[in-house]
Amino acid sequence: MRIGELSRKTGVPVPTIKYYVREGLLPAGELTSRNQASYDETHERRLRLIRALLDVGGMKVAEIADVLAAVDDPERPLHKVLGAAADRMGGTADGPDDAEAAAARTTVTDLISRRGWRTHESNPAATDLARALAALTRLGHGTFAELLDTYAEAAEQVARADLAYVDRRVAVEDMVEGVVIGTVLGEAVFSALRRLAHVDASARLYGAEGAPGAEKS
Amino acid sequence: MRIGELSRKTGVPVPTIKYYVREGLLPAGELTSRNQASYDETHERRLRLIRALLDVGGMKVAEIADVLAAVDDPERPLHKVLGAAADRMGGTADGPDDAEAAAARTTVTDLISRRGWRTHESNPAATDLARALAALTRLGHGTFAELLDTYAEAAEQVARADLAYVDRRVAVEDMVEGVVIGTVLGEAVFSALRRLAHVDASARLYGAEGAPGAEKS
Repeated sequence: MRIGELSRKTGVPVPTIKYYVREGLLPAGELTSRNQASYDETHERRLRLIRALLDVGGMKVAEIADVLAAVDDPERPLHKVLGAAADRMGGTADGPDDAEAAAARTTVTDLISRRGWRTHESNPAATDLARALAALTRLGHGTFAELLDTYAEAAEQVARADLAYVDRRVAVEDMVEGVVIGTVLGEAVFSALRRLAHVDASARLYGAEGAPGAEKS
Repeated sequence: MRIGELSRKTGVPVPTIKYYVREGLLPAGELTSRNQASYDETHERRLRLIRALLDVGGMKVAEIADVLAAVDDPERPLHKVLGAAADRMGGTADGPDDAEAAAARTTVTDLISRRGWRTHESNPAATDLARALAALTRLGHGTFAELLDTYAEAAEQVARADLAYVDRRVAVEDMVEGVVIGTVLGEAVFSALRRLAHVDASARLYGAEGAPGAEKS
């Protein structure tokens, strides 16, 4: 199809499509004449993926370029792709290496062993978790760690469902792309559900008036 | 305390502290002489909150300024503050208003009524959820909606724990700040746990080799 049809089908304006091609997010179309390129379903699908990561995942163009480069490169190990997709979820800085950071790392190591998780505390997600817990402690919310097992149980439930879905639904050739979609969009889905569940839990706990502080609304 | 001590206590460099004051994130210290200002525990605490939102929450300085302005303004309704803290979790654009978007909105309305959630489909989180589901459908993952109730159950579990924690632990005067911390940092904690649980679920499902595609690692 021509670029105009690709634009109509995906709702992405032609200049934006050209921009994605220039930035390396979208492969160029096949040249059919000096001024005309032809696009196929793979372009359409890739364009939808880009828009989902941008619009729903809130990723930046440069971050998407990194993730897609990893998706396209069979030499790039899968866990690196996942790392690239997951990195933007994590923090951007390490934070101070203080007593709170050390205590948080111990809390994470204990949690992993207590849950019997087959993962290692050097996993980037474990680092992100320790960083978030250390920040909470520095803010006087060290007791938030009491919620960790409830959170972990909910995370296990979601992860089992995710994996069963991927296992059942996704052809192996789409696995890497599926994992990127699941990591970024699944995150957005859960985040929205958690916020909705907060509204409900708050209404149940404090009545129709909502949370304390509702007098402010 | 002087700015140097504030810097030592929080690990934030003096020029950065001055930058936060200029940008309105941190109230100025009390002038004790023409060139010297004095800072107290409220500055220290605010500084830690700024760093947590930046480093762990991945928020931008301008976004933090908005959230803090809402935290500081007793006239700003609580749900607006929450909206400000939660907005960065959601997408940045609306996406096309097509058949997928309409179907996703119906899915969300049905979910809210099925779960008996005391919330409304006009809630921004409901909009974000519909947007994520529509993006999944456009990518050929419409059946992801089958996972919604498992996700919702996990979200209810987390939300109940969050609310019980806030109810038990947080003084009413800290409620608004506590809700911001919980929304942003709790999000980071759950996101990291979900990724760790993925590693574990993948190891259990596919054995020590990890997920299919592990041959690539």
